[in-house]
Amino acid sequence: MFNFKVIVKIMGLLLVVEAAAMLIALLVAIGYGGPDVTSFLYAIGITAVSGGILFLLGRKSSNHIAKRDGYIIVTLTWIVFSLFGSLPFMIGDFIPSFTNAFFETMSGFTTTGSSILTDIEALPHGILFWRSMTQWLGGMGIIVLSLAILPALGIGGMQLFVAEVPGPTPDKLHPRIKQTAKRLWGIYVLFTVLETVLLYIGKMPLFDAVCHSFTTMATGGYSTKQASIAFFTSPYIQYVITIFMFLAGTNFTLSYLALNGKLKKAWANEEFRWYGFFVLFFTAIITLGLMRNTNTGFEHSFREALFQVVSIITTTGYATADYLKWPAIMTVFLFSLFFFGGSAGSTGGSIKIVRIVLLLKNSWYELRRLIHPNAVIPVRFNQRTVSDQIMLNVLAFFMIYVLVFFGSVVVYTFIEPDLSSAIGAVATSLGNIGPGLGNVGPAENFYHVPAFGKWFLSFLMLLGRLELFTILILFTPSFWKN
Amino acid sequence: MFNFKVIVKIMGLLLVVEAAAMLIALLVAIGYGGPDVTSFLYAIGITAVSGGILFLLGRKSSNHIAKRDGYIIVTLTWIVFSLFGSLPFMIGDFIPSFTNAFFETMSGFTTTGSSILTDIEALPHGILFWRSMTQWLGGMGIIVLSLAILPALGIGGMQLFVAEVPGPTPDKLHPRIKQTAKRLWGIYVLFTVLETVLLYIGKMPLFDAVCHSFTTMATGGYSTKQASIAFFTSPYIQYVITIFMFLAGTNFTLSYLALNGKLKKAWANEEFRWYGFFVLFFTAIITLGLMRNTNTGFEHSFREALFQVVSIITTTGYATADYLKWPAIMTVFLFSLFFFGGSAGSTGGSIKIVRIVLLLKNSWYELRRLIHPNAVIPVRFNQRTVSDQIMLNVLAFFMIYVLVFFGSVVVYTFIEPDLSSAIGAVATSLGNIGPGLGNVGPAENFYHVPAFGKWFLSFLMLLGRLELFTILILFTPSFWKN
Repeated sequence: MFNFKVIVKIMGLLLVVEAAAMLIALLVAIGYGGPDVTSFLYAIGITAVSGGILFLLGRKSSNHIAKRDGYIIVTLTWIVFSLFGSLPFMIGDFIPSFTNAFFETMSGFTTTGSSILTDIEALPHGILFWRSMTQWLGGMGIIVLSLAILPALGIGGMQLFVAEVPGPTPDKLHPRIKQTAKRLWGIYVLFTVLETVLLYIGKMPLFDAVCHSFTTMATGGYSTKQASIAFFTSPYIQYVITIFMFLAGTNFTLSYLALNGKLKKAWANEEFRWYGFFVLFFTAIITLGLMRNTNTGFEHSFREALFQVVSIITTTGYATADYLKWPAIMTVFLFSLFFFGGSAGSTGGSIKIVRIVLLLKNSWYELRRLIHPNAVIPVRFNQRTVSDQIMLNVLAFFMIYVLVFFGSVVVYTFIEPDLSSAIGAVATSLGNIGPGLGNVGPAENFYHVPAFGKWFLSFLMLLGRLELFTILILFTPSFWKN
Repeated sequence: MFNFKVIVKIMGLLLVVEAAAMLIALLVAIGYGGPDVTSFLYAIGITAVSGGILFLLGRKSSNHIAKRDGYIIVTLTWIVFSLFGSLPFMIGDFIPSFTNAFFETMSGFTTTGSSILTDIEALPHGILFWRSMTQWLGGMGIIVLSLAILPALGIGGMQLFVAEVPGPTPDKLHPRIKQTAKRLWGIYVLFTVLETVLLYIGKMPLFDAVCHSFTTMATGGYSTKQASIAFFTSPYIQYVITIFMFLAGTNFTLSYLALNGKLKKAWANEEFRWYGFFVLFFTAIITLGLMRNTNTGFEHSFREALFQVVSIITTTGYATADYLKWPAIMTVFLFSLFFFGGSAGSTGGSIKIVRIVLLLKNSWYELRRLIHPNAVIPVRFNQRTVSDQIMLNVLAFFMIYVLVFFGSVVVYTFIEPDLSSAIGAVATSLGNIGPGLGNVGPAENFYHVPAFGKWFLSFLMLLGRLELFTILILFTPSFWKN
């Protein structure tokens, strides 16, 4: 029943694209005359040839892609990209272990940003460029996935924020994907270039500016510095990055509308307003907390609070401060943002603002329903009634998220008895954030995590990134039945 | 718009009932010739006179109780009972501080079982008897509340498990309450007597047997011993208590059916089967964990595991072991049960099995809905379709529970910086369990908690006990508007 040939063909095509992307990293490596040139040459060769073979094997496929094929293609894309994407790291022994290389690459393509690297500055430029690029490519994939593919597959309330494009059109993925990609990748590239220029003006070296722009727009969080953004002490640089993180956590459709002069329509978006509200609210609390508990002035406290709040809520994961050294209550506040995530249709991960708001609204409306039992009080969003079906879908998503979170913490405590570290590692992987708590906090890394833990967290990154359902559906028997 | 007179009248009546209950404790005090006789005399006098005055003030009220009055009556009942119920503790200086006495009494009437007492055995018999009785009376209240009043008020999926009595009948609370109370209090009393006899046969002193039967059937967990049930090393006693905790965590309607020969109908109840499954599942895991990690044999491990699992899932909170000394992973398993709770229609607190199962089912069904987008796949429970309305209500309950939990942890970390202790204190109060984690674990008590913390936790006990909505609805402006 599955169109395996078309799956194989698409994988082949995507590998050729990946090889082409590696070619850019190769040019960087050559430009800097680094020790990583050979590594890229081999990696490109293997990836391109594998891609070519797969493409040829599947070339006679029909072009019909059914929903079921869609789920498999999406899941395989991230796995195959990560497998081949880890080649440049492995071949030149820049990351000698396969487990570590795969973890780092999956963390890249899922725009998570958790790293096993303990000395980032020691790596050659080509490798660092490729590492940033995995996130940038991952972000590109996510935009199309969340604004075109998942709504078509009917995943989790995703229909809600693609209001201006036609509703779900089963079995006709192609035209939607192309149209969306064209529009929104343009914005994505534009913002990346703009951030690079602004960072460069702020005296960040061009190489670092490009790499950080890649990982900002992807809400990925890989840095070219071991100290992350704390390395760049310039307030200007930190504010620029904050602004672009915020934009990356905004539905790209809204940016598209705004840039096309439809500012009013963009501003009317309810999710965007809530997103702004949450950012301001948490920033205000943490700013006050930092001012009271440390002796830093307002600007410095505000900047650190704003940066960390935006970094976590957008699931970027850059650090300008080790929030584990903050007063416990501030850490708890920040940690709660691990479960927010950016807007839907952004490159951010985690639960997403729209779902949080729908769940909150339903709770509030339920109280009103109890008071007026005979009135029909549906949840409204963006001035429209949200159907019960979508509400139940959002509920299922939330419940599965909570279950996977708790279940994973239980599994993870087998390898990491420290509960706080286990909670942090699971929450940050599932939410595609980057740093966690305890021994995987912002001042630490994932190098010391045992191999099983790294594979487990890699799986959680993928699960979270693909909005749970895409992966979980593959584990249901009826998916494989006709 | 409110019928304040009838509210005042009912409060008056209930206070007279409370004074009558204190009279029994007074008899115990006299029987043992303890120093608490005067304390009870004064307390009874104050309570009875206050009740009489309130009754007279409200005597001319119409008997019409609207839903809104119902919410206020239910909330006030627990507050007023706790206020007057703390008199015997305070008057004789057995618990000198008002904060401590109120905390202990609210913990009693909400059948929570968190205690501020540091030397239980030093207290006179009458006081200990009253302390156990607050839980027993609280349990009586809960049975009627959950099987008659809340369904009529339309709270949280409660309509689901009162299938054999007619559906919600707004504004006609009286007949239902009487009928339910008659049926189910009979079972409650019967089980209490039965447990007392069985414990007495097992050589537990009669006084302790009565007190423990009171607090078992209420899933309250107050013990007459500082060491809780660990004091009674007899396996027979521990098994007897386990069985009655399990029964107390079962919907009392099912016990009623079973005792009336309708065993098949009782067994067919889906919530009961899930309840049994969860108990067996968690007991099996923890038994294995204890056997592997400690050198105790099968029977001892099994008994400790079963006792703790049943004690926590039913929200009783008795202890035979300090689970904080177990391997971390076992503690995590057990802690997850803090969010289960007994069956609806039992005296147990927390979220309740039926809601957990409905949420799990919806998640699972959603995957099927994604695979078969054109099929209508509603959640089914007890062979019936569960309406979207009820699902959204359960969702709202769950979401509010999660929100209140996280919000309260944040608030509580202001007074208790240790996160694990804060999480434990909040979870155990909201779920009406008793012991928590960290410095409020089963080997500790709540004496050291600052006054603000005790009032905050008392509020959480009430909030959890009254299924959130009953209290929260009072905070909505439209409740007070016409």
